[in-house]
Amino acid sequence: MNRVTHLLGIKYPIIQGGMVWCSGWRLAAAVSNAGGLGLLGAGSMNPDLLLEHIQKLKGATQLPFGVNIPLLFQHSEEMIELVIREKVPVVFTSAGSPKKYTNKLKQHGITVVHVVSSAMFAEKSQEAGVDAVVAEGFEAGGHNGRDETTTLTLVELVRKRVSIPVIAAGGIATGAAMAAVQVLGADGIQIGSLFASSLESSASMTFKNRVVEAIEGETVLTLKKLAPVRMMKNEFCNRVLQMENSGADADALKAELGRGRSRKGIFEGDLTEGELEIGQSSAHISGVRTVNEIFNQLIEEYTIACDNLDNKFV
Amino acid sequence: MNRVTHLLGIKYPIIQGGMVWCSGWRLAAAVSNAGGLGLLGAGSMNPDLLLEHIQKLKGATQLPFGVNIPLLFQHSEEMIELVIREKVPVVFTSAGSPKKYTNKLKQHGITVVHVVSSAMFAEKSQEAGVDAVVAEGFEAGGHNGRDETTTLTLVELVRKRVSIPVIAAGGIATGAAMAAVQVLGADGIQIGSLFASSLESSASMTFKNRVVEAIEGETVLTLKKLAPVRMMKNEFCNRVLQMENSGADADALKAELGRGRSRKGIFEGDLTEGELEIGQSSAHISGVRTVNEIFNQLIEEYTIACDNLDNKFV
Repeated sequence: MNRVTHLLGIKYPIIQGGMVWCSGWRLAAAVSNAGGLGLLGAGSMNPDLLLEHIQKLKGATQLPFGVNIPLLFQHSEEMIELVIREKVPVVFTSAGSPKKYTNKLKQHGITVVHVVSSAMFAEKSQEAGVDAVVAEGFEAGGHNGRDETTTLTLVELVRKRVSIPVIAAGGIATGAAMAAVQVLGADGIQIGSLFASSLESSASMTFKNRVVEAIEGETVLTLKKLAPVRMMKNEFCNRVLQMENSGADADALKAELGRGRSRKGIFEGDLTEGELEIGQSSAHISGVRTVNEIFNQLIEEYTIACDNLDNKFV
Repeated sequence: MNRVTHLLGIKYPIIQGGMVWCSGWRLAAAVSNAGGLGLLGAGSMNPDLLLEHIQKLKGATQLPFGVNIPLLFQHSEEMIELVIREKVPVVFTSAGSPKKYTNKLKQHGITVVHVVSSAMFAEKSQEAGVDAVVAEGFEAGGHNGRDETTTLTLVELVRKRVSIPVIAAGGIATGAAMAAVQVLGADGIQIGSLFASSLESSASMTFKNRVVEAIEGETVLTLKKLAPVRMMKNEFCNRVLQMENSGADADALKAELGRGRSRKGIFEGDLTEGELEIGQSSAHISGVRTVNEIFNQLIEEYTIACDNLDNKFV
């Protein structure tokens, strides 16, 4: 039992990130049933679809689960009402101010966790009354902070700044990384890429296989003039990088991005023209596995990694 | 005793990075005398000055020390001859191919360590016969890799790829970070920024105080069209960022950079127009301390951080 398992009512302090086009009810149910916390990724759903996923998820697990709601998302207000109505036990909020809905959610007995990419925002989140923060570093896939602070640097800064539980995210796809961030003071972890590539993820099998093949250096943080996103390099991404090198402005980048790129890449499996959001930890992923296999492997690796401290440096 | 302390003949597997304008004989002697490995940073010296520093360093410590030689540096060949003549026990090479001088140095009984920013180059370094590699992540100050792989991601990738000792670098300025990279499989650590700000560093006190004041998000990896460098944001850096945003090419950036910027910033303490090379871990540094104080603090923090694993996640 630690602070995160206690707070969320789960067995292992392992949270599956609420990722667009990956985190539907099948993935969330599998993770919650394995002893972690499964999250629905509301960012690629409309409210009707979210309701459907919440209901299916309730039918597939008796254990705690949550929903991730990006606060700048057009449907966020409606979704906040929806998760309250549906008595969703945990809500992760991201990309927006934690002041906006935290009180309201907590008044309805919902546990609130906010995702931050800096220690300053971790402190503001604590002031806003959230129950825990996710400290997500530069290596994470998808939307990312502007300061480019890495998980190694960030987790300890956040740990020193807040007293509430800290969940580390970004670059964690192995049990060794899990143990490393615990050493830095994290009370739990959030994993994205590894679960994005799991059998139960809603992503296209073509996308999952591409993630498995990914080697070091194949992802890049780009679109910084819009909102920074880490994605895998492909034809689309290379055009964006080229445009950025030549000084393209936000409007030109927005036009190049267009609409539906992440759906095209992740859900439809268009590896050349889709936006393939994924983290640096993709280089550590060696197969499409079931959520249960992933949990078993993480636990085994974690135990081995802890032994690395047996022969102390000092 | 671990593989790094054994290889280098030192007490603690703590190496002080060979940093331009910081790592002279005073700093290197203090680190070696404290039980780590002090390195002279040859990148900001000419061969005559390097000889002077080697001789003064020999007079100031009886313990092992080393020299860091950037291989693309104009004086590198002459410096290789110099360190052989002077019987320097350890040479760290960086920024160039490890194939070039490793055999020659080892024939003269010198221990060779090469600095890499990717697992692929770690493997090539091992093939070239080096005794150990430094795996340096994106958060590190000064010159940096093109793949932007963070220390958390990189160290484990390198660990899986090579059998020789791995020294983690980038983002390490606390005992907790030291323990975290050990969990990831590192056999030792290299610290830059924290020693750059030490009392014994050759850097200007103005620069050191600025490093101490630095908060999260104040460094940025820039000059990517030349060779990527992490530096602190200031007037000079902001002009470069502005130029890059507007699509400036390598020639224009080279002209803006000019010559002697790092000397101006680090050694002369020009905080507005100098190039202030420093890592993300500057956000963790809270005072200008002696090397001995730094060692004591690292050891104390390291011991506390190891205890974070007492209450296991799984």
